[in-house]
Amino acid sequence: MTKNIKGIAASSGIAIAKAFRLENPVLTVEKTSVADVNQEVSRFDQAVSKAKSELEVIQEHARKELGQDKADIFAAHLLVLSDPELINPIKDKITSESVNAESSLDEVSGMFITMFESMDNEYMKERAADIRDVTKRVLSHLLGVTISNPSLISEEVVVIAEDLTPSDTAQLNRKFVKGFTTDIGGRTSHSAIMARSMEIPAVVGTKTVMADIQNGDLVIIDGLDGDVIVNPTEDVVKSYEDKKAAYDVQKAEWAKLVNERTVSADDHHVELAANIGTPEDVKGVLENGGEAVGLYRTEFLYMGRDTLPTEDEQFDAYKTVLERMEGKPVVVRTLDIGGDKELPYLDLPKEMNPFLGFRAIRLCLEMQDMFRTQIRALLRASSYGNLKVMFPMIATVDEFRQAKAILLEEKAKLQEQGVTVSENIEVGMMVEIPSSAVMADQFAKEVDFFSIGTNDLIQYTMAADRMNERVSYLYQPYNPAILRLVHMVILAAHKEGKWVGMCGEMAGDEIAIPILLGLGLDEFSMSASSILKARSQIRHLSKGEIEQHVEKILAMSTTTEVVDYVKATFHIG
Amino acid sequence: MTKNIKGIAASSGIAIAKAFRLENPVLTVEKTSVADVNQEVSRFDQAVSKAKSELEVIQEHARKELGQDKADIFAAHLLVLSDPELINPIKDKITSESVNAESSLDEVSGMFITMFESMDNEYMKERAADIRDVTKRVLSHLLGVTISNPSLISEEVVVIAEDLTPSDTAQLNRKFVKGFTTDIGGRTSHSAIMARSMEIPAVVGTKTVMADIQNGDLVIIDGLDGDVIVNPTEDVVKSYEDKKAAYDVQKAEWAKLVNERTVSADDHHVELAANIGTPEDVKGVLENGGEAVGLYRTEFLYMGRDTLPTEDEQFDAYKTVLERMEGKPVVVRTLDIGGDKELPYLDLPKEMNPFLGFRAIRLCLEMQDMFRTQIRALLRASSYGNLKVMFPMIATVDEFRQAKAILLEEKAKLQEQGVTVSENIEVGMMVEIPSSAVMADQFAKEVDFFSIGTNDLIQYTMAADRMNERVSYLYQPYNPAILRLVHMVILAAHKEGKWVGMCGEMAGDEIAIPILLGLGLDEFSMSASSILKARSQIRHLSKGEIEQHVEKILAMSTTTEVVDYVKATFHIG
Repeated sequence: MTKNIKGIAASSGIAIAKAFRLENPVLTVEKTSVADVNQEVSRFDQAVSKAKSELEVIQEHARKELGQDKADIFAAHLLVLSDPELINPIKDKITSESVNAESSLDEVSGMFITMFESMDNEYMKERAADIRDVTKRVLSHLLGVTISNPSLISEEVVVIAEDLTPSDTAQLNRKFVKGFTTDIGGRTSHSAIMARSMEIPAVVGTKTVMADIQNGDLVIIDGLDGDVIVNPTEDVVKSYEDKKAAYDVQKAEWAKLVNERTVSADDHHVELAANIGTPEDVKGVLENGGEAVGLYRTEFLYMGRDTLPTEDEQFDAYKTVLERMEGKPVVVRTLDIGGDKELPYLDLPKEMNPFLGFRAIRLCLEMQDMFRTQIRALLRASSYGNLKVMFPMIATVDEFRQAKAILLEEKAKLQEQGVTVSENIEVGMMVEIPSSAVMADQFAKEVDFFSIGTNDLIQYTMAADRMNERVSYLYQPYNPAILRLVHMVILAAHKEGKWVGMCGEMAGDEIAIPILLGLGLDEFSMSASSILKARSQIRHLSKGEIEQHVEKILAMSTTTEVVDYVKATFHIG
Repeated sequence: MTKNIKGIAASSGIAIAKAFRLENPVLTVEKTSVADVNQEVSRFDQAVSKAKSELEVIQEHARKELGQDKADIFAAHLLVLSDPELINPIKDKITSESVNAESSLDEVSGMFITMFESMDNEYMKERAADIRDVTKRVLSHLLGVTISNPSLISEEVVVIAEDLTPSDTAQLNRKFVKGFTTDIGGRTSHSAIMARSMEIPAVVGTKTVMADIQNGDLVIIDGLDGDVIVNPTEDVVKSYEDKKAAYDVQKAEWAKLVNERTVSADDHHVELAANIGTPEDVKGVLENGGEAVGLYRTEFLYMGRDTLPTEDEQFDAYKTVLERMEGKPVVVRTLDIGGDKELPYLDLPKEMNPFLGFRAIRLCLEMQDMFRTQIRALLRASSYGNLKVMFPMIATVDEFRQAKAILLEEKAKLQEQGVTVSENIEVGMMVEIPSSAVMADQFAKEVDFFSIGTNDLIQYTMAADRMNERVSYLYQPYNPAILRLVHMVILAAHKEGKWVGMCGEMAGDEIAIPILLGLGLDEFSMSASSILKARSQIRHLSKGEIEQHVEKILAMSTTTEVVDYVKATFHIG
């Protein structure tokens, strides 16, 4: 029977394929006595051996399709399964206590996991995670329960999951995954951002897809309107194929704008830029007609490794991005770590409220060696393109002054050593903390530009963790409070002749775009895949006309009023 | 040798007494083999028996000095020590494994603690805490290490601690504790607020008092200037006795203002109100000349119990406060739970960022039965005095409308049932989230009053957890961003003819008071013990004169500029 499920449209496009459920079954272990301990040991051996064969297949598949680093994860799992220090105690326990293999496995592994996890050492903690994964796999064979092996997907599917974690997505083969839908998450959740970067349709926050969809069900994911249709009739499939075709036509139309400047109907130019995480992302920026990189998130250079990246490693990355962008502006954000983004090897203390904690510039101003290394790498790379540097999480004028002083010190030192440093590096800051929006007039005297980080600005202004489902209703980009703060920042900057960009999710949102254009935003930085659509939208908008509407919008009292008004006025949705 | 330690002045006054260290030693257990297991078991029995005698003394002392509920904690500990299900396995382990009593105790208790803690049941988790306390006490006897028993203090002391938790302070006998000083904490930490409510001098955030002060050292705590002096010379003691006497004279001067209205030098009246937590606190409000209760924190009604308080229990508390205040205004804040204030029996999920989570009005609008019970209790009590109700953590106009609608619904229902409800209840809101400050003009059309909650407003505006030592430098009440938001709220309210109060720590701060008076704040709500000093300060300030200074202050860019200017202009510090 056909079923329609409503969710949040997280990445545009339409996918039609068989469902692949990403399962994480709860494996319940009961302790029982066994009469024949030898038979039980051999049952355990068989489960281990099945797990090994399975891992070998996955490892080989991962090597071919996903690369050596992904394959190494499974190599580590195979090592664990061959470790007599883990395997022998499990067998001993079966024999000496006459208990079933499941409980023996569970207890012995549990002991090792607790032990490794309690160590204050990231390497050991990872070993705990490996043992946990492997235990689960062997247990599933003992219990005769299926667990998912997303790395083995070898036909076109749409993935159905409760949520997609970074490690899940790392295992997905982009060739075969045509779209996905999840029970939880919102437009700014990891899975949503991932979908837009993979340029595949996604519908998140459906609450029920895991309950309603079985493996092999035919599923339509409509990432344009946030619909998921399970086992559609032929007519419905046909209509979505038409919708998909129409969307493809529209995309082809947008594609014609790839080399156009972004101008409104009344000839006001704004810059459409892209957010990137690695030098590899530049390709997508250029293919989608990005006029700049509006946010280069340098965190990825620091993640997934055991030590800080060296100055030269960073220099190479920054230089590559600058060169590939061929003189177009590249706004690099200095390290924004902490909060939900941890660097295990820095061994930072756990915080009660990490989003309100020791992160980004706060951490960099204290760990100055690390910060200065990044600054030097940036300065050295500056002569290879059009570099702009910005500092994240600036809350006070003092912090900006300190950060900028460090940059100027390192620049002077490098120049003394005869290193060429560009004389035209603009130095700006993220506006993502309410205090800096409120104080924008003071900051505007000292910065070269602002980039408004709406993801954080919204969560601090509304005092609502955007990752917390129970308060996600307060994550309101169109709340007049947010629009007023954006307005304050733009007015203050323009008064001092400085430009303002925005690099949060909001900058690529079709409801936000008319408002932001009317407010005078100069640069919109978004997922590369959103650029052409935004360019097309802006070409149909008249900035002069919108300005009158904006005045009314700023005087509204609720998000609903704003959204209704924008949709009606600009014929959206 | 005399030692001077600098800290944060957290509660005014001067105390001179012997030091009592609140110790929490780390008890390290080594596992060793023992030859004579019978002797080891008897060593364990002796330690248990010493711990029991100690607990009996503490229990009896607590009953007399602190009340039955505190004594019950120790009764529970005695029960644990008599429980064969805990004690026998420990002895068995000593005998069967020939190990020392310390390791056997540690391992067996550890197992029980892990087991109880893993249960999803608050009662069991408390049992785990009991076992942990008792284990520590027995272990200290086995190891021959001293642990503190603050409940047994029976002479005048100043308490030296790393930090004071609510459970520590519950055990302190207010009669003998003359002051305290801690290594960590700031002006808004629990220990600081507790000191002001106990009206004893305190210096917090010293970083080194635990390292520098031994039991029995003579210690001066200067809560006026934030100094701690260890083993002072006789001359120094004399000079502080003089300072204490002078402060007592000043306090006596202030005391003369107890029945005066609060007026500035140019005859502008403001209201000085007090923050309270229980009906018992009203006495202190009246003794200190409070003109109102500006914040009645109703959380305490809900804490330290196993179920929600009934409507009648709440009614009694609200009625008592209203009656004791004899017609003076009483602003009651509806339940502000969540964040750092947990109610175990509500069994709320753990959150990654509780300060940005499901708390206060967010929780009340979802758990409406609980909220409506409180609202009914308030409405029924309203005819006994001058009740004003305010909702905490309002972020959007929608939330205020919903909360107010619930209040009006319950009022109509009660009136239908013939219950008398006052017709003059003002309904207002806390302004403690940046969005509501930015939107104050819209809110002002719908509320009867605002009360600015600076503790939260500052932490959200600066995106810095005020409990997190590593970012405490960003907790800046005088940052121009905060002052501008306060200004926006006052302007917006006055334009609609509404009044504005402030109930954060800032309202009683001598540097903030001139600025707030100049900004036009109508009501200042603070610790009762700060009221007379504030009244005296305001009588020497001219609002008209300050207004010019305020304009300059709002155009400054850093906290340091503001503080320096205010101190110089108003001769503070």
